Amino acid sequence: MYRLFINQNQKDDHHISLSSEQEHYLRRVLRLKIGERFVAMDGKGSCWLVELTATGGEIIEVVSNNNELSVAVTLMVALPKSNGFDEIVRCATELGVNQFMPVISARTIIKPKENKLQRWGKIAIEAAEQSERVIVPYIFEPMSFDEAITEINKLNAYCYLAATRKEVSSLWENLQHIPKLTSNHILIATGPEGGWTDEEVEKAIANGFKVVSLGKRILRAITAPIMAMSIVVGIYDN
Amino acid sequence: MYRLFINQNQKDDHHISLSSEQEHYLRRVLRLKIGERFVAMDGKGSCWLVELTATGGEIIEVVSNNNELSVAVTLMVALPKSNGFDEIVRCATELGVNQFMPVISARTIIKPKENKLQRWGKIAIEAAEQSERVIVPYIFEPMSFDEAITEINKLNAYCYLAATRKEVSSLWENLQHIPKLTSNHILIATGPEGGWTDEEVEKAIANGFKVVSLGKRILRAITAPIMAMSIVVGIYDN
Repeated sequence: MYRLFINQNQKDDHHISLSSEQEHYLRRVLRLKIGERFVAMDGKGSCWLVELTATGGEIIEVVSNNNELSVAVTLMVALPKSNGFDEIVRCATELGVNQFMPVISARTIIKPKENKLQRWGKIAIEAAEQSERVIVPYIFEPMSFDEAITEINKLNAYCYLAATRKEVSSLWENLQHIPKLTSNHILIATGPEGGWTDEEVEKAIANGFKVVSLGKRILRAITAPIMAMSIVVGIYDN
Repeated sequence: MYRLFINQNQKDDHHISLSSEQEHYLRRVLRLKIGERFVAMDGKGSCWLVELTATGGEIIEVVSNNNELSVAVTLMVALPKSNGFDEIVRCATELGVNQFMPVISARTIIKPKENKLQRWGKIAIEAAEQSERVIVPYIFEPMSFDEAITEINKLNAYCYLAATRKEVSSLWENLQHIPKLTSNHILIATGPEGGWTDEEVEKAIANGFKVVSLGKRILRAITAPIMAMSIVVGIYDN
């Protein structure tokens, strides 16, 4: 279920007013219909189940037993070979991810099959249940690197691109500098086997990404997003 | 290859003198013979390949291109069901683990097969190569919880036991309090499906373990050690 962060002043009793960006995102990008539900969070621990109405959202109930992170995390993952993305969906969902954006990058080897999204969705539901989360992460249709960059421009997130063999500071170090209470969305992009191309790195930088390191060792395409997600949990889930 | 941390004053030109604990560990526990090799590190980034002699160690060469963590990490892992430990060995080796201590706890379901150690060793070698590490993690024979506790008493490590549904501080928070330059060995224990028993938790505490949290969500037995290892990398690999 889609998770939306709102400001205090967007909530008036049981009514949620949506910004034009949020309206666009829910109705156009996610194609939510009136009567469909999403989760609204204030980023400070309060969480509501909300039904989309013609004019905004109506709170259905308070979400209690909230095991969610206080920050929304989107993982933009260049699809690894074979069934590697299954493992990423499973582990990162347990760890508290908010959205997956599977990406076909220049060095991506596989073409995802038609039924993949269904399969991934099923894994995400199982993992969310197992880990006792109240939210099932949203999984985008696989898209090209360029499409992902365009999509991300709408998210208003702190964007990081993990790269190897670069003299850059670590993800951990960078996340320390985000003020905890004002941040609400972090996006982390991890590459395929063989890494991002120089062109992709340049394009990401031009679109506001910061290039970061996940440590000195070379991680597999499966391990990198799980490690990155763990770092976020370490810093935010205290 | 076994990785040993030494103090500055244990190194005299090409000779390494060993403490009685280290002597015991190399010759009795690991059963290294004269002429066999191990790696000595000063915990500050210097690293040597050393040959065991009758009186200590003789430095063979400086290990360059050192992608190792500045801290040694032992993962004490209650064996998960099926082939779950394979995935733990693969991911945690990439992340920089030093030793694996597979444990049969009260709620462990599987009995490891005879050829498991060989299989795990092969995975560790592959993962070390792939991630460009200079060291292949040491994997102990699977042992009982009680045997592990006895073994750990010899390690002189900071010991943490990850548990769920307890009001305890996080691993991340606890690791912040270890002075970076003086610490040289961290041990993290993660439970099986269903978690540690109360008796195991009590026994660990009585043996100097600190009980910690890996976040609010319930992680699988496979995800927990990978997450814990990622936290260590985040903090130490900067």
